[in-house]
Amino acid sequence: MAARVPGRIADGILRAPPRYANPAAAISRSFRLRARPLSTGTSRPASNKVPSPHNRIARTAPLSFIVGGGVLASYLALSQLGHDEIENQHTEASFSTDGRDPSLPRFRLSEIREHGGSSSEPWVIYEDKVYNIKEWVAAHPGGDVILRAAGGSIEPYWNIFSIHKAPHVREILDQYLIGFIDVADLGTDGRPPAEAVEDPFVADPVRDRRLITHTLKPRNAEPPNEELDRSFRTPNELFYVRHHMWVPVVEEGKVDEYALTVELPDGETRHYTLAELKRRFPTHKVTAVLQCSGNRRNDMTRHAGKTNGLQWGVGAISNAEWEGVRLADVLADAGLKVADRKEELLDPKSLHVQFTGLEAYGASIPLPKAIDENGDVLLAFGMNGKPLPRDHGFPLRAVVPGNVAARSVKWLSKIVISDEESTSQWQRRDYKSFGPNEGPNPDWDRAPSIQEMPVTSAITGVWVGDCVRRGRVPWMGNSSSSSSSSSSRNGHSASASKIIDMAAVPNQKVGFTPKESSSTPCPTSTPADEPIALQGYAYSGGGRAITRVDVSLDGGLTWDQAELVKDCADPSSPCHGNKSWAWTRWRYTGTLPVLSLPSASSPSLPAAVQEDCEEGLFPRQNTLQKKKCTTLIVKATDEAYNTQPESFKGIYNVRGNLATAWHRVKICPKCTTGTGVKGTAQEEAKRGLTWSTGETYGCGFKKEADEVREGMLKSGEGGGESKR
Amino acid sequence: MAARVPGRIADGILRAPPRYANPAAAISRSFRLRARPLSTGTSRPASNKVPSPHNRIARTAPLSFIVGGGVLASYLALSQLGHDEIENQHTEASFSTDGRDPSLPRFRLSEIREHGGSSSEPWVIYEDKVYNIKEWVAAHPGGDVILRAAGGSIEPYWNIFSIHKAPHVREILDQYLIGFIDVADLGTDGRPPAEAVEDPFVADPVRDRRLITHTLKPRNAEPPNEELDRSFRTPNELFYVRHHMWVPVVEEGKVDEYALTVELPDGETRHYTLAELKRRFPTHKVTAVLQCSGNRRNDMTRHAGKTNGLQWGVGAISNAEWEGVRLADVLADAGLKVADRKEELLDPKSLHVQFTGLEAYGASIPLPKAIDENGDVLLAFGMNGKPLPRDHGFPLRAVVPGNVAARSVKWLSKIVISDEESTSQWQRRDYKSFGPNEGPNPDWDRAPSIQEMPVTSAITGVWVGDCVRRGRVPWMGNSSSSSSSSSSRNGHSASASKIIDMAAVPNQKVGFTPKESSSTPCPTSTPADEPIALQGYAYSGGGRAITRVDVSLDGGLTWDQAELVKDCADPSSPCHGNKSWAWTRWRYTGTLPVLSLPSASSPSLPAAVQEDCEEGLFPRQNTLQKKKCTTLIVKATDEAYNTQPESFKGIYNVRGNLATAWHRVKICPKCTTGTGVKGTAQEEAKRGLTWSTGETYGCGFKKEADEVREGMLKSGEGGGESKR
Repeated sequence: MAARVPGRIADGILRAPPRYANPAAAISRSFRLRARPLSTGTSRPASNKVPSPHNRIARTAPLSFIVGGGVLASYLALSQLGHDEIENQHTEASFSTDGRDPSLPRFRLSEIREHGGSSSEPWVIYEDKVYNIKEWVAAHPGGDVILRAAGGSIEPYWNIFSIHKAPHVREILDQYLIGFIDVADLGTDGRPPAEAVEDPFVADPVRDRRLITHTLKPRNAEPPNEELDRSFRTPNELFYVRHHMWVPVVEEGKVDEYALTVELPDGETRHYTLAELKRRFPTHKVTAVLQCSGNRRNDMTRHAGKTNGLQWGVGAISNAEWEGVRLADVLADAGLKVADRKEELLDPKSLHVQFTGLEAYGASIPLPKAIDENGDVLLAFGMNGKPLPRDHGFPLRAVVPGNVAARSVKWLSKIVISDEESTSQWQRRDYKSFGPNEGPNPDWDRAPSIQEMPVTSAITGVWVGDCVRRGRVPWMGNSSSSSSSSSSRNGHSASASKIIDMAAVPNQKVGFTPKESSSTPCPTSTPADEPIALQGYAYSGGGRAITRVDVSLDGGLTWDQAELVKDCADPSSPCHGNKSWAWTRWRYTGTLPVLSLPSASSPSLPAAVQEDCEEGLFPRQNTLQKKKCTTLIVKATDEAYNTQPESFKGIYNVRGNLATAWHRVKICPKCTTGTGVKGTAQEEAKRGLTWSTGETYGCGFKKEADEVREGMLKSGEGGGESKR
Repeated sequence: MAARVPGRIADGILRAPPRYANPAAAISRSFRLRARPLSTGTSRPASNKVPSPHNRIARTAPLSFIVGGGVLASYLALSQLGHDEIENQHTEASFSTDGRDPSLPRFRLSEIREHGGSSSEPWVIYEDKVYNIKEWVAAHPGGDVILRAAGGSIEPYWNIFSIHKAPHVREILDQYLIGFIDVADLGTDGRPPAEAVEDPFVADPVRDRRLITHTLKPRNAEPPNEELDRSFRTPNELFYVRHHMWVPVVEEGKVDEYALTVELPDGETRHYTLAELKRRFPTHKVTAVLQCSGNRRNDMTRHAGKTNGLQWGVGAISNAEWEGVRLADVLADAGLKVADRKEELLDPKSLHVQFTGLEAYGASIPLPKAIDENGDVLLAFGMNGKPLPRDHGFPLRAVVPGNVAARSVKWLSKIVISDEESTSQWQRRDYKSFGPNEGPNPDWDRAPSIQEMPVTSAITGVWVGDCVRRGRVPWMGNSSSSSSSSSSRNGHSASASKIIDMAAVPNQKVGFTPKESSSTPCPTSTPADEPIALQGYAYSGGGRAITRVDVSLDGGLTWDQAELVKDCADPSSPCHGNKSWAWTRWRYTGTLPVLSLPSASSPSLPAAVQEDCEEGLFPRQNTLQKKKCTTLIVKATDEAYNTQPESFKGIYNVRGNLATAWHRVKICPKCTTGTGVKGTAQEEAKRGLTWSTGETYGCGFKKEADEVREGMLKSGEGGGESKR
């Protein structure tokens, strides 16, 4: 499973337990830039810099920064330093022939590489400059994770943790300047060539090509709609990927010695190797959804306005069967004692469980959830009957069913139980702006972090017209593709639940010919009995079951209930766990309202009018008497009878979090006469009734997966920060 | 506390434990009308009626009927008998001088009264007829609760359980006819006078006159807005009242012997007297809201269409501190053993806890909620530091925090643990129609009963203009009424949380004079700095805390956050319980948008146009350029980030349940010039700027509490059935 470990990257990772600083501990200490002469390793630069008393920073400000509901405790805290508290002591004195200060030495890259994370004199490079960060490590708010960059460039890390890209951070770094990269190692642009600096992502696993990628490094990708909920359990290779950094590498041979550290509120610490966890605690299975708080963010952007962050479609959610040991069991074994009815010990309500992953990401959950005997929080090492894939936390991850996926920390290496206050410093609240405010949220303290998720749903498949008539909807019973060719992908039979296997009809026509002969003129409207089939998922957090799913084919004018797939009743996919942690798949078949269908030969309206026509049933006074397009809508209700917001207007927030409004998919019919000449399949496909949608696709639609992929990639470009 | 017990009513009630049949047991037995000669007590009528073989009914149909989320197991099941299976054997043979069958005897009322519930020959009367129900009692689907009517008229009971008002029920009764009421006891209308037949509601407690009454018998009433959340804990006498029948009477001297029966799945039964419960189990306090599923139903009616049931305003919700013993403790003591991780015993997920009250109402909760150590389900005998009032379940009730109040069965006399299937027969699902269907719900099986409640909120107080400027909003700090004159009503200090005490300003002017002198002409618009203050409550079920409340003063165009009152942090009102079961009160102050204010002297628009003007910012081409009215909105978000539906259109259901859409209150300013002559206070009040709203009221508004009361009573008239 694990690839061979490339040098430097592994260097900081393989120690078990990893010796990365405990971010919570880092939080509680104040730190200062030390006022001292620069100490360097191999050569003492002829520097006359003596830090002034102003060059001191003493601050106990919050030292971490939220990314997507968790904390990237490392690297990030520099932004908390007041800009005005730092006096830039670095002035460029003079320039040599290469245009750089001749008073400082030059170093070869080979020499720099020797000053890696395990060196007593760790160096990093930035642009063409060399820095000795030895004295900074202890002061680095993010702890000694900074050592991972030692021996090479710090730029890839800053690219990820972009908070470092601020003048004052650069000013801090500049205090540790010891020299420059030798011109012999610089390219024509005055920087070392990319191939000379190691790419920390080089060891990332190979991903399934069907995934729709939002960012490459770190990889953030979602399965295409037609694969997302094809089966009840999303196959491992299609499970959505949400990373903040590269994927940590753990050698297969060392997996058993992989260690988890558990720190109790009294500071007592215990270590468990993975082998020990498996041997000493009973194994449990939990079937649970993981869903990013940014799922459907793209929806919010399109319907309510610009949002920051990855522009997820409806696929930042997946469902799997997790296997592991109960966190509650491990915490009890480690010696955690909380209040029960008889004795007053620790009040669990005041405590949080902080999870930290190998790659430095961290997030916390309230202790009551962690120890709730019905809460099913796992330390998981298995996923859908296989070992955890590297992309999903190999060899160990937290799985917190019912909560936002940001809590299910991957590559779990450390657990700290701490009080709420220090946890809220460790993990700044992520719900920065839930409301119309565009700027920093003035209600920071009022917005608690996301734990349990609200109810949501989405349409993932649409079949229209002849696609339905011709039996291309496998779960409608008359399908020819009921035995799924892909059912063995994740080791489960997909046919048992009769959900469509779109891979079985990969070469379906893009468009299709309506019942009328293709030589007849285009009709003026769609048939009154135009059939439509929809499928999708619904989910609510907190273990609340989905009790109903409502579908509208006419933009919300009328509603009907969808059929809920009884996946948990299927012996091949039993649902494990004490509550309803899995998603509920649903199906719906109905008849579309009659829609106007101006033929290609009819006089075309001005584009502006046409656009207008697409929304209203009786648009402005123009020639169209019926609406041309219709909006399909789905909304779900959970067992607490919470339901989804009607629109995004009441839940818009600039972070684009929790985009749970009714899912609307506008579909538009189009009649094209084509050439009238038998030609290529493509040309034939152009004839007759076709359908289009900018949002999803299915049989009968113009859009193909690739087109949607491109569109999503495009829309994701603007917001491809490492935020969820 | 308990009044003296009036004769017959107490007769059927005072036995402890009550010997009313277990409805669940009644359910499982088939029953038949016995084919037998009529057996009567005092006289054998010269009847030749011999029931034919057709006169048999053998059916095991569901024998109970839902009322408001619970089951009224008594009286109700007759409707399940197929009409066509009953052949009416009763034919009127001949007539005497009083126009009634001379072959049957006449009885005096005094004689009839001797055939009460404890008589071996129980009689009831209906209209002018006398029936001996001895043989019917065992066959009565609702069990022997029917005996409560013995000795008197069965009509008041049928008025409540209107399901009996069907021809086939009457036909069953007619089989037991033994004679007629003597003409000496009949009024001119041929019926016994009302005062001669005891009113079962005669022993109902006297209620606070401030309550807004929807139905008198049974009493259903809510506190007026200004009292509802004046204090964090609703005073006992103002707590909303939701009854299905009269209030059972339990003599104070017999309270300690009041017995609760607990029946386990294996049929084993235990009895606990109230004294035993108090002595043997630790006492716990829980601060929790009870909310009817019909709360805000009137809102749904006004915004989405006709709904059945009591037309509650925003007051079918109240908050109290409950004291009692944990249901979980009692069940464990009774011997209930459920599955834990070690041993597989009963799976709690398959079991329900059925609560039955003295007056026959019943409802169930899933066993996991009942035994959840954080679930805080109580058998309560105290409310806000006092014994339970009779209206709220004296001497013992269930309190199921976080669930719909229908589960918190009052006058609790029996608890049965049973499997889900027999429970769902016992307690037919109440969520009959959640969707656009007007008729019987075709999705009966898809709609699970309401347990946990969704998030909701409401505006309960509004202050505008000078009302705010003049310091009439006590919680704004400059109030003259911060010491509440009513703070001692429920034994708690209301001043600690500084919530408005409207009782302290009872004589406030209805209208008020704007800053301009009353002699100046009306302005054309409201001032740009017109202040407004709002208060209200927010609540979510399942113990989910309210995390934010958003307020809009302009119909949803812009939003701002309200301040959440930290009631639980107030030492005088600590919140007891493991989760957030209480409501969250909120306050908001802001500035209204400028609204057009056509003076009385300005040319008036046609009424239709004016109406139209009230909604839009820029209405149809007419003289008003700004909207005249504005809509105040509140919406809440809970800790799972569930929020309220924007409108009622997606949640409309004919039962009017869970009316949780954003709460909207339209307010309209009006400038009246009045007479210009100093006169009475009323006339003065007519001058200047006044405000009106059809939905709530507060300082500065035209509407007074009485007017709102009347309006609510009126709107409740049409739907005053005994449903919640």
